[in-house]
Amino acid sequence: MKKLATFTALTLAMSCANATPVSVNPLIIEQQGSFAVGGTVKTSDGTYQPRPEITQNHTSNEFMAVFNESIASGGQTLHGDHATVSYQIPSNAKKLPLVFLHGAGQSMRTWQTTPDGREGWNNLFLRKNYAVYLVDQPRRGWSGRSTIDGKISATPDDQFWFAQFRMGEYPQFFNGVAFPQDAASLDQFFRQMTPNTGAFDVDVIAESLTALFERIGNGVLVTHSQGGIAGWFAGIKAPDLIKGIVAIEPGNFPFPDGEVPATIDSAFGNIEPTKVSKAEFKQLTNMPIIIYFGDNIADQPSKIQGKDQWRIRLSLAKQWAQVVNKHGGDVTVVHLPEVGIKGNTHFPMQDLNNVAVADHLANWLKEKGLAE
Amino acid sequence: MKKLATFTALTLAMSCANATPVSVNPLIIEQQGSFAVGGTVKTSDGTYQPRPEITQNHTSNEFMAVFNESIASGGQTLHGDHATVSYQIPSNAKKLPLVFLHGAGQSMRTWQTTPDGREGWNNLFLRKNYAVYLVDQPRRGWSGRSTIDGKISATPDDQFWFAQFRMGEYPQFFNGVAFPQDAASLDQFFRQMTPNTGAFDVDVIAESLTALFERIGNGVLVTHSQGGIAGWFAGIKAPDLIKGIVAIEPGNFPFPDGEVPATIDSAFGNIEPTKVSKAEFKQLTNMPIIIYFGDNIADQPSKIQGKDQWRIRLSLAKQWAQVVNKHGGDVTVVHLPEVGIKGNTHFPMQDLNNVAVADHLANWLKEKGLAE
Repeated sequence: MKKLATFTALTLAMSCANATPVSVNPLIIEQQGSFAVGGTVKTSDGTYQPRPEITQNHTSNEFMAVFNESIASGGQTLHGDHATVSYQIPSNAKKLPLVFLHGAGQSMRTWQTTPDGREGWNNLFLRKNYAVYLVDQPRRGWSGRSTIDGKISATPDDQFWFAQFRMGEYPQFFNGVAFPQDAASLDQFFRQMTPNTGAFDVDVIAESLTALFERIGNGVLVTHSQGGIAGWFAGIKAPDLIKGIVAIEPGNFPFPDGEVPATIDSAFGNIEPTKVSKAEFKQLTNMPIIIYFGDNIADQPSKIQGKDQWRIRLSLAKQWAQVVNKHGGDVTVVHLPEVGIKGNTHFPMQDLNNVAVADHLANWLKEKGLAE
Repeated sequence: MKKLATFTALTLAMSCANATPVSVNPLIIEQQGSFAVGGTVKTSDGTYQPRPEITQNHTSNEFMAVFNESIASGGQTLHGDHATVSYQIPSNAKKLPLVFLHGAGQSMRTWQTTPDGREGWNNLFLRKNYAVYLVDQPRRGWSGRSTIDGKISATPDDQFWFAQFRMGEYPQFFNGVAFPQDAASLDQFFRQMTPNTGAFDVDVIAESLTALFERIGNGVLVTHSQGGIAGWFAGIKAPDLIKGIVAIEPGNFPFPDGEVPATIDSAFGNIEPTKVSKAEFKQLTNMPIIIYFGDNIADQPSKIQGKDQWRIRLSLAKQWAQVVNKHGGDVTVVHLPEVGIKGNTHFPMQDLNNVAVADHLANWLKEKGLAE
């Protein structure tokens, strides 16, 4: 009886340890905090009335009526379209911080705890002594204040993203996929998503990134997916501050006028390459760039959404690298399975092997002199 | 000449110190991360088609058309209405963590860096060895995924909130207000705001808080403003887990059926006290509760919005404390100027004297045995 009790206690202790992995070493954080950066101010016509004429008492339910009277008088401002940044600076921080920008439908949570409760790249790169700046882009997450109206549809679409993000063909995961396949982890993953609160605007996002680097100084930009597009434009705007760009499965690539390749067909939505001026393009030859793609990407047209959607982007990435390098740039495209890192979804920073991918990136940063 | 140079260097060093205050001691963090908690799953009618019939190739601009085809086939889920939690557990953490819930129009940024760049209560209470859990309530900030449609109006309203949050009568600050009065700080403050992505629902929020305490165990709940209302209902639902409640200028108070006081009039929107059952009310006599109110609150009806709006809530708070204490509870209402802490706005956790207010709270936690 006693032995059984001990065994049960041990089992419980072990399952607790599995549920909440405890890191061996604490993080030593010299500074941490949050701030807004970039953005604009919109002002309504009229004159603000701090003491509106109140003709009668309003009931509790009429608080909104008072609010509406106040904004109707006009002359008020709205501070919006900024990015919000959460940062941590560890002790003995390296010179160049890492700035992380999420992708479509995501927020800075992309870089934090993984869906199954392991440490994300935020913690992993703090442990490698990088200062880490996480961004919620304008009109997303903490940066929800937009200067244009927004409409949010609550139409179920998780399965579309499961396919697009290359977990598998719902409800089947791809064989050998490096994503946790238990229900609780998938639940957590879906709950990372958070909508645009106003129209997606790549220029507004790129400007907020530029403003961020102007505030914090030189650094390395790490983008994910849709965020990659804003990242290229940030690199074009601030090539002296952005000392390197890491793009995890970016959505598109800016080719110079006159060297734009053909659109690549996909049954799930083509990619028309982005076009920029030669002068703009030239800026992206000023910093080393690495682009990562994961596993389960087709090399021929496929009827599987995720495999086909990233086939066309990986193909475009390789074409873009050639053009940048021909113009004196330094772009490396890493197709992870080719370097022995297998099973990755569209979220390698969260996959089961996210430590291996982080280590690969850390080596590249070191090689390029960005890890001092 | 040399003396001048030394003087200049010293001046520069001093202004840098002002711009970015560097804390003397680093934070030692044993664990940190984020997760979703609570929420629901909404499913659309139909059958999900992982391989929709694609009759023609779609161009890049038709990615949304593919997305719309996918969701139109139905059979998809939406995981929404959860809270999102960011947590840090310092070394030598006290037994009971603090859970912080923001107010109207805000997110967990309420508790982080102040508008003028000082440490907020997140850092201050980590330094006091509390584990800290910051919440973005359902349909706000990182928890933007809602099961009901949302509409966001980009109508300028900063000046309404400046008044409601008791900074002053825009553009004038109140005399002696403990809020930084430079333009950059006010800009940062306005940019903390972030809208609801779906209708505000106090039950959904209270349920997510309950789910959070079920996950992390016993703790103390700290609420701000509108968040206070969800906080009372969380206390009613989980009185065994919520060992104390701290309410910073809560928006309303739950009175027991039969003891609901008269509605208090304000020209800027009355307060009709919240009514709960006697059994529900009784749960709030099970834990110590402290309620804070700041400065510039009128004791007679006032034509100044902020002074009048918090007059009626402070008055209601005092009535509520009497009723709870009569039923065997332990509620303390602290009107900060009466204990010598002056000038506070609706955001004492960010005001210039936020350290003094935090210390007052820390003493109360100690007195009530919540600081072990």
